[in-house]
Amino acid sequence: MEKSYSIYNTDYIQLGRQVLNQLNVPSRHAEIVMENLLDSDKKGIYTHGFYRLDTYIQQIKRGNINPNPKITKVKDHLNIKLLDGDDGFGYVVSQYAMEEAIAISENRGVGVVGVRKSNHFGAAAYYAEMAAMRNQIGIVMTNASPAIAPTGSLKPVLGNNPWSISIPTHLGYPITLDIANSVSARGKIRLKALNGESIPLGWALNENGEPTTDAEEALKGVILPIGDYKGYGITLMIDILTGVLTGAKFGNQVPLVDQDGKRNNGHLFISLDIKAFMELSEFKDRVDELIKIVKSAPKIREEIDILLPGEREWQTKLSQEQDKVKLPERIFNFIHALSTEYHLPLPKNELLI
Amino acid sequence: MEKSYSIYNTDYIQLGRQVLNQLNVPSRHAEIVMENLLDSDKKGIYTHGFYRLDTYIQQIKRGNINPNPKITKVKDHLNIKLLDGDDGFGYVVSQYAMEEAIAISENRGVGVVGVRKSNHFGAAAYYAEMAAMRNQIGIVMTNASPAIAPTGSLKPVLGNNPWSISIPTHLGYPITLDIANSVSARGKIRLKALNGESIPLGWALNENGEPTTDAEEALKGVILPIGDYKGYGITLMIDILTGVLTGAKFGNQVPLVDQDGKRNNGHLFISLDIKAFMELSEFKDRVDELIKIVKSAPKIREEIDILLPGEREWQTKLSQEQDKVKLPERIFNFIHALSTEYHLPLPKNELLI
Repeated sequence: MEKSYSIYNTDYIQLGRQVLNQLNVPSRHAEIVMENLLDSDKKGIYTHGFYRLDTYIQQIKRGNINPNPKITKVKDHLNIKLLDGDDGFGYVVSQYAMEEAIAISENRGVGVVGVRKSNHFGAAAYYAEMAAMRNQIGIVMTNASPAIAPTGSLKPVLGNNPWSISIPTHLGYPITLDIANSVSARGKIRLKALNGESIPLGWALNENGEPTTDAEEALKGVILPIGDYKGYGITLMIDILTGVLTGAKFGNQVPLVDQDGKRNNGHLFISLDIKAFMELSEFKDRVDELIKIVKSAPKIREEIDILLPGEREWQTKLSQEQDKVKLPERIFNFIHALSTEYHLPLPKNELLI
Repeated sequence: MEKSYSIYNTDYIQLGRQVLNQLNVPSRHAEIVMENLLDSDKKGIYTHGFYRLDTYIQQIKRGNINPNPKITKVKDHLNIKLLDGDDGFGYVVSQYAMEEAIAISENRGVGVVGVRKSNHFGAAAYYAEMAAMRNQIGIVMTNASPAIAPTGSLKPVLGNNPWSISIPTHLGYPITLDIANSVSARGKIRLKALNGESIPLGWALNENGEPTTDAEEALKGVILPIGDYKGYGITLMIDILTGVLTGAKFGNQVPLVDQDGKRNNGHLFISLDIKAFMELSEFKDRVDELIKIVKSAPKIREEIDILLPGEREWQTKLSQEQDKVKLPERIFNFIHALSTEYHLPLPKNELLI
């Protein structure tokens, strides 16, 4: 089993902030990025945690991310706003956008904020949950680099466009759906190929457009959207709502990770006020009732847990000491290397057995 | 090949209205129902066309649908409304709800209308397209009787909760996604079983919770949601947004088709004004550009068409004479039987070769 290390939240955030400062990211922006990455690491979603700095640092150095953007309001009409992220961190403009959406919905029932000229914004769940923490319903979506082919083609011309919905509950944490639109991620297939393993049927097509269980063949083909034409349709609609509608790039215009150029990603943030429909306590009682219905469905096998969307991530987060975060060795090693490279002190840490 | 018949739209609507009149449905309500069914038949979606009257007539006779409801406004606050359908036709309250949502969004950028105490409302696309026809973006969702099990269970305690998004375009018709959250419908599996055919892997689990290609075994088990836990999460979220949030029934409280009792379905209608984000013509130009990207993706095989969501249905609709509708023999036979039973003249018709 991989070793893991525990470090203080404050040290985690400080190291990231200091690295980003050296790349001309202002402290307040750097803190927004780091708080967001910390949340993913605490939930055990290491793909969206500290390790992401690796890519972001490259993107700043290559001029793809503007380290010190000036966020502007392009449109502002009653319940709708449109923001321009000035090619800065997706995290920064998105934090601001969701706060605006929530402020609007608290006053007027529903707030919709679009964003253009953004970059990767991390886990969509983070923003949807900002709304849920304020007893609003959060709906968040973004476009992304091409990964999904329209049904009938093998050429990825659409992003895997993640989306999230988060609902406040009596549980002490929200129910949060956060998904992209493929059956499995390309990264997972790459891992299977590396380990010489096969993949389940339905994950991908080979280069001839045939279903395959061979991970190597799958990498030469294309990953499949959920429910075939359904997932293609969902991802197309999200591209329209985030890329087309906001004035951002869309379809195969969005650069791949290893391509240069401004990403110009588009996002959409919606906040919906429950109190416009019913008393908050009544709503949460009703959510509780639905949770009971779902949780008491007979299980296929006794050892299986019937989980709510996002439940596993929240259980991981809540199992941690509040002021610390547990990180697997490979992430800790990256932190170590980064602190050395930027001549910063290695955060105080504890090896966990 | 099955024979088909052509009848005039006006005759189609009149027959339905006269039948519904005899069951105490007011003419205006009956016309709303029939216009909606006609749209589905014109698109070739016969499962949501005239034939549905069969079920609705039974539901009225059994007291499950109130033929003459009094629709009331439960909440009305700026951009949000909540309507009570008084257990009438889902079509009637939904038509009214979407009109309200559009009127709000035209004035204030975004309108959200919830509905409780409703019934089956037909194709979700119909309402989403009402918005698109008015150059708004329409988003529509509903809950439904239990059909989907949470991941880890075989017991359907959640509806297959259809949803639709419709986008105005330069094409002369909108792009419309209209999907439920299972890989395939239970009805399709029943048909495969009747024909002694097998089903693709991934459609269903058998009664032991194992993937099966045997249609008979599948019917004893459960249909699978798209992307497994993803589709389960989507359908759960739609139940919260439509059933829980509106004060309707939700989860396994919603009666099955053959159970008696008020359905009390919940729906949510959202209309979003494009002009709050950018000029309409610019938006449609950009949608056009995205359509070109999708349509020009290289095809797996030459004979395949890369389709937009809803394209096939619109091509069918637009291929018809404007004042007539083409119906397959089995639907025409139902019309014949119904007109006999209710002592009404059989619509003038033409047999097509």
